[in-house]
Amino acid sequence: MKVYYECGACFLRQAREAMDLATNDNDLKIELMKSIYEYLAKNYKKGASSNKLGTNMHRMIKEKTSCLDPYIKEKEIGNKIAIDLLPKAKEILKKDNSLENFVKIAIIGNILDFGALGLDIDLEEMIFNSLNKDLAINEIAIFEKTIQNADSILYLADNTGEIVFDKLLIEKLVNDYNIDITVALKDKPILNDACLEDALAIGLDKIAKLTTTGTDSVGIIYEDLSPDFKEIFKSHDLIISKGLGNYEGLTELDKEIENKDIFCLLCAKCSAIAKDIGIEEGDMVLTKLKT
Amino acid sequence: MKVYYECGACFLRQAREAMDLATNDNDLKIELMKSIYEYLAKNYKKGASSNKLGTNMHRMIKEKTSCLDPYIKEKEIGNKIAIDLLPKAKEILKKDNSLENFVKIAIIGNILDFGALGLDIDLEEMIFNSLNKDLAINEIAIFEKTIQNADSILYLADNTGEIVFDKLLIEKLVNDYNIDITVALKDKPILNDACLEDALAIGLDKIAKLTTTGTDSVGIIYEDLSPDFKEIFKSHDLIISKGLGNYEGLTELDKEIENKDIFCLLCAKCSAIAKDIGIEEGDMVLTKLKT
Repeated sequence: MKVYYECGACFLRQAREAMDLATNDNDLKIELMKSIYEYLAKNYKKGASSNKLGTNMHRMIKEKTSCLDPYIKEKEIGNKIAIDLLPKAKEILKKDNSLENFVKIAIIGNILDFGALGLDIDLEEMIFNSLNKDLAINEIAIFEKTIQNADSILYLADNTGEIVFDKLLIEKLVNDYNIDITVALKDKPILNDACLEDALAIGLDKIAKLTTTGTDSVGIIYEDLSPDFKEIFKSHDLIISKGLGNYEGLTELDKEIENKDIFCLLCAKCSAIAKDIGIEEGDMVLTKLKT
Repeated sequence: MKVYYECGACFLRQAREAMDLATNDNDLKIELMKSIYEYLAKNYKKGASSNKLGTNMHRMIKEKTSCLDPYIKEKEIGNKIAIDLLPKAKEILKKDNSLENFVKIAIIGNILDFGALGLDIDLEEMIFNSLNKDLAINEIAIFEKTIQNADSILYLADNTGEIVFDKLLIEKLVNDYNIDITVALKDKPILNDACLEDALAIGLDKIAKLTTTGTDSVGIIYEDLSPDFKEIFKSHDLIISKGLGNYEGLTELDKEIENKDIFCLLCAKCSAIAKDIGIEEGDMVLTKLKT
């Protein structure tokens, strides 16, 4: 996705948060801020790729603080909250076990910013409200038809915690549509994205093949992918993409996604993404990417 | 005040807000973001002055958008809310008309970020809570003693809306301590700082002399002051300073404030200021500056 002007402030907000998680050295943080300004002064402009800038900024922070996983605690919190909610989510899916409802639950996994919300929010109420809210874009019919005609799906995961809800959708797809699913995790920590160990911890390997993108980019940056993952990517015609980072990365691709059926499931948690898709901030979507 | 690392993200947050108020031209906003990165990449470093960087950034935004007063609506909203609250504030001061209570009301004027809070907040409750909260630093005794021994005060105003509450304190000082007060406003708009017309609109000229700093800086930047205001500044030994910007600017001065009695009245609305003073974020203070 090309940067919007508001990404300009968002990068620094993320930088501050990541630094706070990575180090207590305030002098180092001032130097880092300066380095980030220098990097963005050179690279931020109309037409720049939002997830490339974000990726490089987070890599800079990890390298200079020597903290390889700043969001480690956030991920643990997120995972715990998701697991605590799982019985309630399953109960809801028992009452309405349509594919659309499983899709919604998976998107709600993307809404619940576990690191940010903490334990005080009435998450049960939040789930109900989200379930009662229509998807702003709902391409469930073409989504289901495409799945029925496919042999395999490449499922691009997003966050830790969220994958607990993804697992419900993946189980549904495997059981009801007799389809092979490969779930792509990140190879190394980036933000609170799910890595291989997070997927193994929830038993995702029992129902799907697991792989990694070979890198720690926000979403897909094609040149950073491992050769193995590039092969996996090329060989899948049907891709389910979770979250914002994956949307940002996929919309930068062209020939790499030609003729593929790509469905993005996300909650538009920022104004830039909302504008890019043509929806309101906070809207949930199941949308087919133009390829 | 020297920048803290968190100022790094705050500058961009402010930039985005100011741009949104100043223009709808998204391409211009992207260019502006880049210019701000370039400016900060050059000037942001350990030891840099926080209000100088902030001032230059806001001037850049006003110039490039040709919008001389981005916060004009925010100021109108702030003023209206303050005026609506005035009867309640006066009622509170009737019950306890100590100097300390008038000081607290003036500081609460600095807390109530009128632009941000809007009309939904229970401001009456907020006033009561703030009045019941102790000042984290309370130098009321030396404050009162210094006033009793002085002939005049230079009162550095901060925000529109807030000056409605400042007027109550100024009236108290003029009536009970028989002291001349000169109130310094900004010469041209900066953020939601009070300018001369804002002070005239609430009749502040009826009880105090009004002047301007001669510039549109955040707080005091000595080299930007008009010659007239430098004279006024030099000739006053007792200064009351409202808000964060003035604190940031005064703490950068040395010989210019030698032997002066300067009292800062503010609510520490950000972590950088709180750290600099040695208090918690959100604390209110009446504190004497070391000069």
